[in-house]
Amino acid sequence: MSESGSNTQLRDAALKASQRSDVPSFIVMDVMQAAAAREAIGRRVIHMEVGQPGTPAPRAALARVGQALERDTLGYTLALGMPALRERIARYYLEKYGVTVEPERVVVTTGSSAGFVLAFLTLFDVGARVALPSPGYPCYRHVLNALGQVPVPLVTDEASRWMPTADHIDKAAREHRISGLIVASPSNPTGTMLEPARLAELIAACRRNDVWFISDEIYHGLSYGMREETALQHSDDAIVVNSFSKYFSMTGWRVGWLVVPGSMVRPLERLAQNLYISPPAVAQVAALGSFDGMQELERNTAVYAANRSLLLDELPKAGLARILPADGAFYLYVDVSHLTSDSHAFAREMLMETDIAATPGIDFDPERGASYVRFCYSGGASDIAEAARRLRSWKRLQR
Amino acid sequence: MSESGSNTQLRDAALKASQRSDVPSFIVMDVMQAAAAREAIGRRVIHMEVGQPGTPAPRAALARVGQALERDTLGYTLALGMPALRERIARYYLEKYGVTVEPERVVVTTGSSAGFVLAFLTLFDVGARVALPSPGYPCYRHVLNALGQVPVPLVTDEASRWMPTADHIDKAAREHRISGLIVASPSNPTGTMLEPARLAELIAACRRNDVWFISDEIYHGLSYGMREETALQHSDDAIVVNSFSKYFSMTGWRVGWLVVPGSMVRPLERLAQNLYISPPAVAQVAALGSFDGMQELERNTAVYAANRSLLLDELPKAGLARILPADGAFYLYVDVSHLTSDSHAFAREMLMETDIAATPGIDFDPERGASYVRFCYSGGASDIAEAARRLRSWKRLQR
Repeated sequence: MSESGSNTQLRDAALKASQRSDVPSFIVMDVMQAAAAREAIGRRVIHMEVGQPGTPAPRAALARVGQALERDTLGYTLALGMPALRERIARYYLEKYGVTVEPERVVVTTGSSAGFVLAFLTLFDVGARVALPSPGYPCYRHVLNALGQVPVPLVTDEASRWMPTADHIDKAAREHRISGLIVASPSNPTGTMLEPARLAELIAACRRNDVWFISDEIYHGLSYGMREETALQHSDDAIVVNSFSKYFSMTGWRVGWLVVPGSMVRPLERLAQNLYISPPAVAQVAALGSFDGMQELERNTAVYAANRSLLLDELPKAGLARILPADGAFYLYVDVSHLTSDSHAFAREMLMETDIAATPGIDFDPERGASYVRFCYSGGASDIAEAARRLRSWKRLQR
Repeated sequence: MSESGSNTQLRDAALKASQRSDVPSFIVMDVMQAAAAREAIGRRVIHMEVGQPGTPAPRAALARVGQALERDTLGYTLALGMPALRERIARYYLEKYGVTVEPERVVVTTGSSAGFVLAFLTLFDVGARVALPSPGYPCYRHVLNALGQVPVPLVTDEASRWMPTADHIDKAAREHRISGLIVASPSNPTGTMLEPARLAELIAACRRNDVWFISDEIYHGLSYGMREETALQHSDDAIVVNSFSKYFSMTGWRVGWLVVPGSMVRPLERLAQNLYISPPAVAQVAALGSFDGMQELERNTAVYAANRSLLLDELPKAGLARILPADGAFYLYVDVSHLTSDSHAFAREMLMETDIAATPGIDFDPERGASYVRFCYSGGASDIAEAARRLRSWKRLQR
């Protein structure tokens, strides 16, 4: 040990982290840590920072896991996932959207995180340019950067419900020669959705420009009036990313799925074998069981709907009235430009003074995000009501 | 749907898989699929192809999971893993090797697969050259390729116990300007180990050439006489990769760990947040519990030791006498050059005629591997004995 110690100075100069590892932190996870520090000193923090349900996996999922613990070895599964789960997911498309998907095109992944990594590696070479809306989920661009690809932000606004337009795609194809587009509807962080006709328009624009359409459907199942359509209703060429984390209430289990064109399955399988070996077996067992827990999941969703209504009533009374159309997911993206031009500092103040953890918009939009904060309303009803009370009495908002 | 159908021909030409996705299949997983096909027609296949224990996680691990299913939400954990697990792993280094490791330097990962992806991305930029022994674990080079890095094979031989030497490193640094070296001891597929003094030599050679030393210690705990040393006994700069998959008997749970220099923790954390969010919570709970199941794990290891002895006695009688020094892991790497120059075809014949699944050496060494087959002896004692019987009566070996 002493030998290595004596060389530490020298080594520090020579061996350093790669440039590609210099991606920004996923700020929401730093907020999570700051909130944990508050709890460690005895404060009761209301968690509105992380986009995850406060509920566990449905009981039907847990029951199936309990059986598997007694009976199964739970070793590696096939890289593309357990056949029974791939079939069940395929059937879900028929049940939910009325669209036929061959089980062979369903790929089980280690959460949507692995879905994105596998899709990006399968579709795009080093240097490829991929368009994504801003504001948007920060990991898209960070993962693209880490994999040597180039994110091309499409700046959206209220006029297009904070979603990209066909014009955006034509322009990005012309000016940046993009190879792909990622769209999430419902969106994180805005909660806004694409109107069904516009989804078809975007897919058509991608097709005429030879651009892969990657549809992040992780918040499907969580909408409050507007109709949800999967990209698969419009195209067999779309890459669909989904997960058991949100609607199915299984974030920490790390299991999700992709639906891809048949020709992409084998390249994707090879990468999955090498990069992941297989998704977690126990999580796949839980996922299979979760389809028998839909009533419980619908009860969870009813809580989100009530939380959303309460906040849409109460936040304006607290002085937070500029809220983007809250079509789906479990987020409100709130314009706080009248209160701050530094949403990171603002979120820190809120945590320290009200013990409410929320995420600064800069996680999602490096520029305009300085004027926005994202609140996640996936917690329990009493927590969300308490958060509204705390915000209504927070002096910082009263001017 | 009809619209997309009419465009399929056009699209096929324009939208295709990336070049980087053209990595070879991890052949062992294809063998696994062929074996499953044999079982589907009612054959009793003995699985010696996949490097995984036939045993489940230890009972102590399962018990802790059972409790967690009742009590915990099992949401995302911190990206670096549950603090209690990081502390427990750090303590394991003191117990097992007598070396002090700060818990802050321990990073819980989604299996060693994620450990490699995170280490490669944190340490190496696009185009970086990384040396690895051939024969060796195929995913090293496939993952490096997929991430835009360049594997540099070091061809090893019997004289150096199939391990790289300090000369290899000096030469590769001079000729290829390598940035890193990966060594596994015990090795997959050979089962050979580095003598302790040589581990120190390799680390010193890496240091003088400013090359990262990545020590794959996934087979630690599985050795049959030769002393195991962790690279951390020789250097604080080494990157150690380990996992709960092998000794701890938890392959399908997908949980492992890294130990890295303090300066690498934060870059690595940022990548982990973005690429994985967190390792599976339930697997981390099981991993924590597994440390209370060491007696059971030692019983598993005793079975491997007996299997190894039996095969080292029996295989030569079956005509398979050229076996590399079986120091550790649960593999025998057998030279079959007197029987075939196509180990893939040979393994297929063996599966079809004896219902023993083993892995062709070409998975591990694209050239010389055509003359080798890897047998994994992690199965139950009766299975391994039955395999020996089948091989002794397999006509193909009798000449």
